[in-house]
Amino acid sequence: MHRYRSHTCAALRKSDAGSTVRLSGWVHRVRDHGGLLFIDLRDHYGVTQVVADPDSPAFNTAEAVRGEWVIRVDGLVKERTEDTVNANLPTGSIEVFAQDIEVLSKAKELPLPVFGEPDYPEDVRLKYRFLDLRRDTLHSNIVKRTRIISDMRKRMEGAGFTEFSTPILTASSPEGARDFLVPSRIHQGKFYALPQAPQQYKQLLMASGFDRYFQIAPCFRDEDPRADRLPGEFYQLDLEMSFVEQEDILSTMEPVIRDVFREFADGKPVTETFPRIAYDEAIRKYGSDKPDLRNPIVMEAVTGHFAGSGFKVFANMIANDEKVEVWGIPAKTGGSRAFCDRMNSWAQGQGQPGLGYIFWRKEGESLEGAGPLAKNIGPERTEAIREQLGLGEGDACFFVAGLPEKFHKFAGDARTRVGEELDLVDRDRFELCWIVDFPFFEYNEDEKKIDFAHNPFSMPQGGMDALENQDPLSIKAYQYDMVCNGFEIASGGIRNHMPELMVKAFGAVGLGADVVEERFGGLYRAFQYGAPPHGGMAAGVDRIVMLLVGAKNLREVTLFPMNQQAADLLMSAPSTASPAQLRDLGIRVIPPKE
Amino acid sequence: MHRYRSHTCAALRKSDAGSTVRLSGWVHRVRDHGGLLFIDLRDHYGVTQVVADPDSPAFNTAEAVRGEWVIRVDGLVKERTEDTVNANLPTGSIEVFAQDIEVLSKAKELPLPVFGEPDYPEDVRLKYRFLDLRRDTLHSNIVKRTRIISDMRKRMEGAGFTEFSTPILTASSPEGARDFLVPSRIHQGKFYALPQAPQQYKQLLMASGFDRYFQIAPCFRDEDPRADRLPGEFYQLDLEMSFVEQEDILSTMEPVIRDVFREFADGKPVTETFPRIAYDEAIRKYGSDKPDLRNPIVMEAVTGHFAGSGFKVFANMIANDEKVEVWGIPAKTGGSRAFCDRMNSWAQGQGQPGLGYIFWRKEGESLEGAGPLAKNIGPERTEAIREQLGLGEGDACFFVAGLPEKFHKFAGDARTRVGEELDLVDRDRFELCWIVDFPFFEYNEDEKKIDFAHNPFSMPQGGMDALENQDPLSIKAYQYDMVCNGFEIASGGIRNHMPELMVKAFGAVGLGADVVEERFGGLYRAFQYGAPPHGGMAAGVDRIVMLLVGAKNLREVTLFPMNQQAADLLMSAPSTASPAQLRDLGIRVIPPKE
Repeated sequence: MHRYRSHTCAALRKSDAGSTVRLSGWVHRVRDHGGLLFIDLRDHYGVTQVVADPDSPAFNTAEAVRGEWVIRVDGLVKERTEDTVNANLPTGSIEVFAQDIEVLSKAKELPLPVFGEPDYPEDVRLKYRFLDLRRDTLHSNIVKRTRIISDMRKRMEGAGFTEFSTPILTASSPEGARDFLVPSRIHQGKFYALPQAPQQYKQLLMASGFDRYFQIAPCFRDEDPRADRLPGEFYQLDLEMSFVEQEDILSTMEPVIRDVFREFADGKPVTETFPRIAYDEAIRKYGSDKPDLRNPIVMEAVTGHFAGSGFKVFANMIANDEKVEVWGIPAKTGGSRAFCDRMNSWAQGQGQPGLGYIFWRKEGESLEGAGPLAKNIGPERTEAIREQLGLGEGDACFFVAGLPEKFHKFAGDARTRVGEELDLVDRDRFELCWIVDFPFFEYNEDEKKIDFAHNPFSMPQGGMDALENQDPLSIKAYQYDMVCNGFEIASGGIRNHMPELMVKAFGAVGLGADVVEERFGGLYRAFQYGAPPHGGMAAGVDRIVMLLVGAKNLREVTLFPMNQQAADLLMSAPSTASPAQLRDLGIRVIPPKE
Repeated sequence: MHRYRSHTCAALRKSDAGSTVRLSGWVHRVRDHGGLLFIDLRDHYGVTQVVADPDSPAFNTAEAVRGEWVIRVDGLVKERTEDTVNANLPTGSIEVFAQDIEVLSKAKELPLPVFGEPDYPEDVRLKYRFLDLRRDTLHSNIVKRTRIISDMRKRMEGAGFTEFSTPILTASSPEGARDFLVPSRIHQGKFYALPQAPQQYKQLLMASGFDRYFQIAPCFRDEDPRADRLPGEFYQLDLEMSFVEQEDILSTMEPVIRDVFREFADGKPVTETFPRIAYDEAIRKYGSDKPDLRNPIVMEAVTGHFAGSGFKVFANMIANDEKVEVWGIPAKTGGSRAFCDRMNSWAQGQGQPGLGYIFWRKEGESLEGAGPLAKNIGPERTEAIREQLGLGEGDACFFVAGLPEKFHKFAGDARTRVGEELDLVDRDRFELCWIVDFPFFEYNEDEKKIDFAHNPFSMPQGGMDALENQDPLSIKAYQYDMVCNGFEIASGGIRNHMPELMVKAFGAVGLGADVVEERFGGLYRAFQYGAPPHGGMAAGVDRIVMLLVGAKNLREVTLFPMNQQAADLLMSAPSTASPAQLRDLGIRVIPPKE
């Protein structure tokens, strides 16, 4: 017989009754039922109930074992009596009568209980992560994470992609976030950087004649801790394709991501065909470029109904600036003064002067628009608004007015709030969509100049002609995001592979060819020696896993995360370096100021 | 029709004749055959011949294009005449008559030609790696590398393993080589380290209750450049299993690695069942713990034949020290004075006094042992040696004498030399074996003390009993290597999961429990809370790929390698950091000494 086990702790069934088996695992729980000892024995695969009766030669050892000890058990499989069958356990129809128990490893008193998973402070969980990871929820989250990533790989290979690993010790790239630097010993005074993303490498791969690249890529950003971001490293499903247009990327990746979601959604519905929503439209309808489409509310401009109306606040704004708009946020089932007032208070808590509303109620036989706004604009305009938005008895509508570029974010938050408060959002589904046609440039208010809105590597729609002849702020990029339930889960673009177009685009934000050369030298050089049209995207693996397991925190889907202060409490990192190490690297630590 | 292509450059066949197609790719080569222009159009998948005749509207553009320009070609597929069919090309039975050519990207004059792959200096190849990677040999090496890694993943999953990614920003680990350090911005004066291997994490995974872990793991060692090692990062197929003994690891991994070799060996034979050779036996038979078993030479001790013989050099050595041995290196077909003298000169070039030999030739009807040694020891002893080693006419034997621990490396080199010089080595095969039973401790001559021979995490054979009662230098470890064609391609061990045994083992090399705690705190702590018996190994991915593609240099199987001075010439890494970056990190660069 094998030294440690003939079966895993998930393997035994009724048909094994009568056989002698060997199991190894952790003592999940010990119960004493009138002299009989019951041990739930746990391994990676499952749990099996072990029984030791006082006549068994294993009884003394069974009495000694405690939670999380590792033991080997030899015993006889017996069918459980009908009233003791545990239908929740795959092994619930049998138990193993212990004949021999060997202690393989003892456990000290547990700083963090495994059984029952009681809440414990984060720092204890991280310091004793090896105990935390034995707990059922985290254990199965991590297993699901590995299965999701493996499934992504298979689907990408099935779609004709090849996985390439790109370098991790590379050059500092001025793409956005802060780099992690690695001092070079051989070139003292110089530094490698960990990649924020393999962006330049994947484009270089296309210039190198490879066609469909992907990678489950570790990425590194030295950013300040934030609730929805782990410090340090994260993973992307990164991909790039040659000789493609935007449509090719979208139609290639939509089934991959959709089917990954379907595979791991536990039966929850997943969008069949992802709507493609232009950035401008997303802002107008949802107030966000990351709309949660589980929320059925679609905002609409109702400016005309307020222009010249008796509600002077809005009417004057509209009269004074033709860019002013009024948006309506329809709120089905929200038609009570209590709810409307609650929303108004919430808006004030958000720093707004308030949130205008109308709600509709039955007044005798007829439908009446109620609230101060309705009074001010009169029944005809109120009715026109109701009709435009398809509202009825018991519904409400909220209004925001001003310059859309200033208020759209608040409007989007209000839409979310209304949807959640009225329970209009079906939480048990995955609503996916594409956001397309992002602006290429944006106006930087602080520096009073034009900047790249997103990725300077993206291709402007209209190419050189647009850059030469169009109002820069009206130029769109071949750039797209994939959004699920209000989270951006992927982002990508068709790249600008033309050196002269790159120089032109950088020129528009006030940067010369020398800057392009200096910052993106390798890539800029590559584009001068025959580069294919190409594009791609990167999906956030951690975020997708979090959505699919329903976790609220990235640490619940990460094996050995750092804490929010970017410290690894298990391995004690970061730590001080020895004087010899620092000397080797030619660096000195600046003593902290008193 | 698609904007860039209806087919790849590898797709068209005779059956496509008559259809109008669209191709995109790089201009591999242009030839002018009496006015007709032939363009070999290349993409990732293959090459298609495009023809432009002077009547074609595409002719002018075809005349303009140069090597490595990227073009789109619309044209008519025609079957080639029988005498122009190119049987070496999958598309060789057709050609595409261009009707329209669009230049998608031009190329400047090439610093490194792609077509024909002429030899070019390493620094040009690395700086223009995107051109180098388009060359057929490197391109297909890299593609094969990706396929090998993908195949490894599939086989590991098939064997019940789950892939986990372990952290890359972690703690400095005092395992052997030098760490790359990453200064922490949030904890100024402290440093993360990049993992030399995920050794501690994979053991922590076992302590966390996961069962069969693997990872295609990036590893980082800041070592001085060496011909057979890339500076910076490399990849391992890393794995660990719980509740196993050595035999389980060997029998699980042998088919995985064997079948990966078979899949990519291009028909070359691969060892069916890997011999298991004890370390001591490998040293005695092959003079190495990395024996090349393609070399049929097996060394044997022939000490007795020289003891008390007329060859006083050996006889006196044997008489003076009972540990002295004489090893014979049989050399079939090496039986000429010329060859033996050449080996003797080679040995002198290696710093040896010489290399004694006997060779056998026909003298009339009888077999005669020739050479000075044979004369000195006489015909009877000469014949006994011949019989022991199974040699005959035209064969030779070389002899080394002394303390085996001092000469075995040289003896192994001589064995290799003889095998190669006599062409006894069948190069076109993969001979794999396991080396087992490595010593647990070794004697450190410099420090006059006992040290761990290999991995301090390994389990000593015999456990606590051996540590307490055995001569330390006689204790073996449950530690094993996998060797292919003279290269160590994997290494592993059963781990010591018992804290008290760990402390005992460290004590034997003069280190206290405090050192264990300080150096391996996370792991040592984990072992105190119920750790399963476990073990694993790590295989060198780069080395395996190198063997399978038959490359001589790791840079020939690596996408974007650094040069031997640990610099990335394409991305210009490492580079200087800005004063702001250094200030953020709280470090200062020490100015170089004049």
